[in-house]
Amino acid sequence: MLLIDGLPADRIPITDRGLQYGDGLFETIAVKDGLPCLWQRHMARLEKGEQALGFTPTDKQLLWQEALQVAAGQTSAVLKIVVTRGSGGRGYRPPSPSHPRRILSIHPWPDYPAEWYEKGIEIRICETRLSNQSRLAGIKHLNRLEQVLARAEWENPDIAEGLMLDQQDRVICGTQSNLFLLKGDQLLTPKLSTAGVAGVVRELVLESAEQFSLKPRLTELSIDDLKQGDVLFMTNAIMGLCPVVRFEQTVFELKKIPAELMMFIGHTYLAAG
Amino acid sequence: MLLIDGLPADRIPITDRGLQYGDGLFETIAVKDGLPCLWQRHMARLEKGEQALGFTPTDKQLLWQEALQVAAGQTSAVLKIVVTRGSGGRGYRPPSPSHPRRILSIHPWPDYPAEWYEKGIEIRICETRLSNQSRLAGIKHLNRLEQVLARAEWENPDIAEGLMLDQQDRVICGTQSNLFLLKGDQLLTPKLSTAGVAGVVRELVLESAEQFSLKPRLTELSIDDLKQGDVLFMTNAIMGLCPVVRFEQTVFELKKIPAELMMFIGHTYLAAG
Repeated sequence: MLLIDGLPADRIPITDRGLQYGDGLFETIAVKDGLPCLWQRHMARLEKGEQALGFTPTDKQLLWQEALQVAAGQTSAVLKIVVTRGSGGRGYRPPSPSHPRRILSIHPWPDYPAEWYEKGIEIRICETRLSNQSRLAGIKHLNRLEQVLARAEWENPDIAEGLMLDQQDRVICGTQSNLFLLKGDQLLTPKLSTAGVAGVVRELVLESAEQFSLKPRLTELSIDDLKQGDVLFMTNAIMGLCPVVRFEQTVFELKKIPAELMMFIGHTYLAAG
Repeated sequence: MLLIDGLPADRIPITDRGLQYGDGLFETIAVKDGLPCLWQRHMARLEKGEQALGFTPTDKQLLWQEALQVAAGQTSAVLKIVVTRGSGGRGYRPPSPSHPRRILSIHPWPDYPAEWYEKGIEIRICETRLSNQSRLAGIKHLNRLEQVLARAEWENPDIAEGLMLDQQDRVICGTQSNLFLLKGDQLLTPKLSTAGVAGVVRELVLESAEQFSLKPRLTELSIDDLKQGDVLFMTNAIMGLCPVVRFEQTVFELKKIPAELMMFIGHTYLAAG
């Protein structure tokens, strides 16, 4: 099912600035038993994006109603919400006022193999670098060519994800996930002040780290730092938390991820919080 | 008139990757007496973009037929061509094979004031910086949030354009134009190896410089360099060549732009070359 501005439809006018300039935002949301998960966190990030781009904010209560409508009857599914600046004339200058367009669509739940979680995934390093742009860092906007180019770099289905570095050789994230490094009781993750998307599960992991006696820290990480950690894991709103077993020649010891942390992230999806 | 894949239509499916990720390219083309101007140059840039993004190349002969159809009967107009990677599923990975979508639309000719050309325009410096990304530099892709943010910085109609700098304080371009600095017989323009769009009129100016006894050079330029030049001018496919009279406290002497060069650029639009 698809909803555009609350009505069933599957097409948008070509005047939409989301198409013309990537002038928009999106959220990819897990749906369990008809309920969108981590809703407040997704909406908080969407709102940050709306502020960063100067959008008239969408009505989040209305989005919730539309999300429920699209998610109705879905046991497990992926809800994608795209909010664009709406239609405009030719030229970069945003129309004032603008009338953002809401596009909701539902997609099949990707059945990631169970061994990803039990044995860990293998990842690679992408050649495509992220550019540094503090005005767009952290938000989930529609300018995603760097991720598209990075994801086009490999076809081997045994490689689940690719790490992306920025122009200064700092590790920032996966093409569609965030990254954590466990080193002793330190839980390290890149800062994302000039690149990357601040994931909702990343935020959840950071906030709950102390429950598992881990010390969370936002920092800069190099490829060498990763190899010297105890274990690496990736997070996103659909995959949850997934450990990395192998990264180039480095093999990690998965048992070092607290089982309670993995359970916790899994269980979070059962709640619509 | 609008054509999508050769048929009259004004909407695209929301599955289009141009909307989902800005996974596409565009050209903005002057139309005079029903003919798209500088066609070969626009198509050469489009083709470079298609190669950079790994698109199945569009049929340029077919695009020409569609362009003529859309431009028919237009004395002066703007033709916009958007080519996206076409529709795809959820996820950054490009579908293989992909089926690019061609979107052609016609827009009113912007009647820039005559004094822009006679007396010059006033420009400003944008706070929004361009990020550095060598894989996307030069091509005219749909990831344009930096230009949108930059163009949203000012409302004063007396300011015709804003200069954009990169992360290393190098001047790269205007929000929608390229930039040239005349200094003695040197004609300098930024290199665009890590940011900016390589404009078709920029290319034309560079290639014809020697006809006007000017020595063209691609280089790095700082704000200070601009202030020490004789005269600054901006180019794009619709505006042609437009001199800058004032930039912050600096006032330029417009008479130093060879009149033949300005005439030449103007006349180019009468030919479909």
